[in-house]
Amino acid sequence: MTGSSLAIDISKVDDKTRTTARDCIAVEEPLEIQLSSATASGSAAKSISITMRTPGDDGELALGFLLTEGIIRSADQVASVTHTGPDDEDGLQNTIRVELQADVDVALDKLERHFYTTSSCGVCGKASLDALHVSGQESLGQHTTTFPRDVIIALPDRVRLLQPLFSATGGLHAAAIFTADGEIVIVKEDVGRHNATDKVIGALLISGRLPGNKFGLLVSGRASFELMQKALVAGIPFLAAVGAPSSLAVQTARKFDMTLVGFLRDSTFNIYAGAARIGN
Amino acid sequence: MTGSSLAIDISKVDDKTRTTARDCIAVEEPLEIQLSSATASGSAAKSISITMRTPGDDGELALGFLLTEGIIRSADQVASVTHTGPDDEDGLQNTIRVELQADVDVALDKLERHFYTTSSCGVCGKASLDALHVSGQESLGQHTTTFPRDVIIALPDRVRLLQPLFSATGGLHAAAIFTADGEIVIVKEDVGRHNATDKVIGALLISGRLPGNKFGLLVSGRASFELMQKALVAGIPFLAAVGAPSSLAVQTARKFDMTLVGFLRDSTFNIYAGAARIGN
Repeated sequence: MTGSSLAIDISKVDDKTRTTARDCIAVEEPLEIQLSSATASGSAAKSISITMRTPGDDGELALGFLLTEGIIRSADQVASVTHTGPDDEDGLQNTIRVELQADVDVALDKLERHFYTTSSCGVCGKASLDALHVSGQESLGQHTTTFPRDVIIALPDRVRLLQPLFSATGGLHAAAIFTADGEIVIVKEDVGRHNATDKVIGALLISGRLPGNKFGLLVSGRASFELMQKALVAGIPFLAAVGAPSSLAVQTARKFDMTLVGFLRDSTFNIYAGAARIGN
Repeated sequence: MTGSSLAIDISKVDDKTRTTARDCIAVEEPLEIQLSSATASGSAAKSISITMRTPGDDGELALGFLLTEGIIRSADQVASVTHTGPDDEDGLQNTIRVELQADVDVALDKLERHFYTTSSCGVCGKASLDALHVSGQESLGQHTTTFPRDVIIALPDRVRLLQPLFSATGGLHAAAIFTADGEIVIVKEDVGRHNATDKVIGALLISGRLPGNKFGLLVSGRASFELMQKALVAGIPFLAAVGAPSSLAVQTARKFDMTLVGFLRDSTFNIYAGAARIGN
């Protein structure tokens, strides 16, 4: 786990005592994502995003981000993914370059405005709901895989077993891809839910399993509009969150016939949209 | 609380039953922050940020954001703060314009690059630690107000009493300003911790209580680099988080002689930096 967690000395305090202890914390470091195009005359890289992430699975993070932002549509469009630049003093590589195939046309000039108005806190609410519509995102209503109630209730405990960094630090979000049989296909951890989500979607992309019509996505914490949007773009019709959903997450789920489950904990959950996909 | 929470129909599921219920969810809507300058020839507004926020305290949010991003330094520099543009279909106003005094010089042209590399997930890690140093942020080590252990332990319960939206929705983050006597001076709620933090800092700015040398800042959830940076810029030497801190939050606290407390729950907490400010 070198690079993802860090051991430091801290003081532990309760109402009577104060003791010194060795503690593990989650690493937070910037990742710059660069985009370049393979051409005969070489490639010029353009920096398109800097996100604060937990090191690890940087390639999955970069590709998941590019996919869910609508910049690439398939793994075929990618020629290579490589860390570039010098290491920092801790030996971490914080720049990753995605080289696109020469025949892939992305409007790099338009990206700047795009990223100017988007961020990890989500893109622009209602304007973006319209944008999702225009950019060809369609209802996922035809994907009717049913997820049994018991499978859903068992998810948090199953995923927790697969979270080594959370166990060590108590300080990481997780995203997981699961099936209707209750199999946990992929789990990734990060200081940010959006990064953990990009990592699992990037892993699906790389392994040729998108669109993810048969899958569900579990996220720790709350369900925001941005996470719902990422699931939608990846074709995943089911989002389950351990915490509460926001209004815009619910509206997005209902608009695109997705299933949204929240407060999944202590053997109970709430269904905010798409109850038909949940079996008894 | 109209506009901050929304009642919808959902299904509640446990291992045996499924019932329909009326539920309250936290509203998530975009807020566009525009900046203009009062000049003789009128003012041209520039959109500088769009953030997903819970409506309410938009003026505090905008001013807290401008302050913690280093764009303004005092409330004196602000001529007016007004909602602009048409209401959306729900009657929410999602654009706010901050007009600066005519003699305030902000490099609007440079903002675009700035916001291009920052986002709600935090600015660029180590590069930003250097930037904080260069931009004149100094150690807060001379501010030595001591916060008794019992005051710190009591904070989460006190703040929870002051969180009407969280009580209703279970889906909001909170930020609170507290004193060494245990007084909760300000509490704000939002779907994003960074927005809740901007709201309380904006409220301190408007009421003439910055720099906040005598205060502490409590945040729900985890302590990221970005929250530590916001406290630093506001001159608040003490950050307490209910959740875990990240590596970069700890490094920032230690570099600038701030106090960082994490895992503040169940009458215990951990001290990651600045233990001298915590009394017995």
